[in-house]
Amino acid sequence: MSASHESIIVETCAAVTRVEAEWLQRASQRQLTLTKPPGSLGRLETLANQLAAQQRTVTPRVERKRIYVVAADHGVTAEGVSAYPSAVTAQMVANFLHGGAAINVLARLGQCEVRVVDAGVAADLSAHIDLIHAKVLWGTANFTQAAALTRAQAWQAVATGIELARAAQRDGVQLIGIGEMGIGNTTSASALTAALTGAAVEQVTGAGTGVNDEQRTHKAAVIKRALAFHQLTDATAQYDALALLAQVGGAEIGVMMGLVIGAASLCLAVIADGFISTAAAALAHRLCPAVSDYLFVAHRSVEPGQRALLELLQAEPLLDLQMRLGEGTGAALAMHLLDAAARLLSEMATFASAGVSDKS
Amino acid sequence: MSASHESIIVETCAAVTRVEAEWLQRASQRQLTLTKPPGSLGRLETLANQLAAQQRTVTPRVERKRIYVVAADHGVTAEGVSAYPSAVTAQMVANFLHGGAAINVLARLGQCEVRVVDAGVAADLSAHIDLIHAKVLWGTANFTQAAALTRAQAWQAVATGIELARAAQRDGVQLIGIGEMGIGNTTSASALTAALTGAAVEQVTGAGTGVNDEQRTHKAAVIKRALAFHQLTDATAQYDALALLAQVGGAEIGVMMGLVIGAASLCLAVIADGFISTAAAALAHRLCPAVSDYLFVAHRSVEPGQRALLELLQAEPLLDLQMRLGEGTGAALAMHLLDAAARLLSEMATFASAGVSDKS
Repeated sequence: MSASHESIIVETCAAVTRVEAEWLQRASQRQLTLTKPPGSLGRLETLANQLAAQQRTVTPRVERKRIYVVAADHGVTAEGVSAYPSAVTAQMVANFLHGGAAINVLARLGQCEVRVVDAGVAADLSAHIDLIHAKVLWGTANFTQAAALTRAQAWQAVATGIELARAAQRDGVQLIGIGEMGIGNTTSASALTAALTGAAVEQVTGAGTGVNDEQRTHKAAVIKRALAFHQLTDATAQYDALALLAQVGGAEIGVMMGLVIGAASLCLAVIADGFISTAAAALAHRLCPAVSDYLFVAHRSVEPGQRALLELLQAEPLLDLQMRLGEGTGAALAMHLLDAAARLLSEMATFASAGVSDKS
Repeated sequence: MSASHESIIVETCAAVTRVEAEWLQRASQRQLTLTKPPGSLGRLETLANQLAAQQRTVTPRVERKRIYVVAADHGVTAEGVSAYPSAVTAQMVANFLHGGAAINVLARLGQCEVRVVDAGVAADLSAHIDLIHAKVLWGTANFTQAAALTRAQAWQAVATGIELARAAQRDGVQLIGIGEMGIGNTTSASALTAALTGAAVEQVTGAGTGVNDEQRTHKAAVIKRALAFHQLTDATAQYDALALLAQVGGAEIGVMMGLVIGAASLCLAVIADGFISTAAAALAHRLCPAVSDYLFVAHRSVEPGQRALLELLQAEPLLDLQMRLGEGTGAALAMHLLDAAARLLSEMATFASAGVSDKS
């Protein structure tokens, strides 16, 4: 099993290729023919050009959109790092499946599919027929005392994400969003961020679902303890992505990491939501830097750790609405902007076709 | 005629009432019952609460959306302030009516109606049956030498906007967007901004559709000449909005100003697009400060003058995508965010209904 998962990951990373400058150039040329002053659509133009290069066409399309909301539990909640009990993870999975959560509302508006994935919830969710059953474990181990996942579990999670990206492509999906639900997972994401970027733990540890300042200080201390336990305290080290995932990661983070790599390997655009999904994207980037050519980041999260990840990824989020919910909520909103960018490049009239005078 | 227009304006301003704090409070209370950590949807929560207070319900709706794209020509183009010839205004009106412009693409995606208004194009557009014919004049006078509009024309333009807001309400529209097309109108908007805010002309004069640095310096000199001609150079003065509109404004700016006042008088949300529509909103605010309770600003424009207007209005745009196209393009995108905010407040499950545990 694990050997096979490892080979899937290795082969998928090898299949990721950079976009071609020639397609960026062709898209830029087409932009100049459209009925608008050159550059006047700002980032919508550069986003569209990137989509064009990914799809190797000057009329890109990201009309069919799907968000994977990946859920898992975290043993580190035993350290009292979250404002909510772990049981909320499974309860929210039920809420997603019943259409009552924020992501459901936004996906309905944005005409975006939602697929909910059990990557590692610490509850029996087998009765939910609409759920994608991909449980790697029943919640991670408490990573202050042990590896969160075994290496085999980490590989399995990433391979699952790759498989989900392939399934999306088979269904005709043109844009994949990644979102998550997992009580305790900002603690994991902050630990990963410190290890990936070398930033100070205090600077990358936020309030998560809403702990107070005292609890946040405690949360940072828990993360420092975990990083020391796993010998991840060298700010200049380039730690291995799969090892980090196993040590202080989570099953949903592994699946999202696999989704990013899988999407990139298929030349499919993928959009990370907020802090935790950006951490997954940063792990994917550490393993396979070329994924960044297919990666967008939806929104600037209130969580302070995301800033360091954005610098690492050299990514600029599309939205800044002071959100910190997760679930893919920011991704659902930002998908509308990517769809808009693609349609503008594909559908706008040209100066010639519309009979509009070009610059005097 | 003019006396009647003036009385419509006066009566409409008198009908604008502030939203009630009680409804903001009720909406905030409902937010706390929804299945998300308190405050985790950030600005989407405050936007939804504002919509709730406007509509006096905790389940607001802005599903039916309409953008008025208001077109007019500007005599000041004789001074060589624009990169495009004036003929482009009429050509772009035809493009809007044929569905080929950026605003058409974005409105189709966002399921938003587009209504194109001839407020003062210097061409005979009577053959276009889909156009709203509300021509106040055939292009403004060159405002470096004369008033852009007569007082009567300025009143007529504002009254037209008020009528269009009323028509939208009769049609069941829940959110009005204002956009424009008018070669030369950044010159007018910059002049208005300097007069409204007291900011230095150089600081509020941008590249418009794309003039170079030398042309921009010339454009600023033209604006300074106009402000001196109309004796609008006292940075501390609170100039009258209707007088400013007549002196250095434009017909499309007057109609948009009326749309803002009209929408607010009907408790309808209205969203300004970029620089020129924000200038129209600022004029509406000068005439009737209470309109700000119904006003949203879509995006932060590349045009430097918008910043001073945003400070005056104490408004924070929803998007920052380095756009500078106009037409209502930013408004079309930001309407999606307002719709999302309203639906989240109206449709999300509560902790009780979904069986989700609240904070531990």
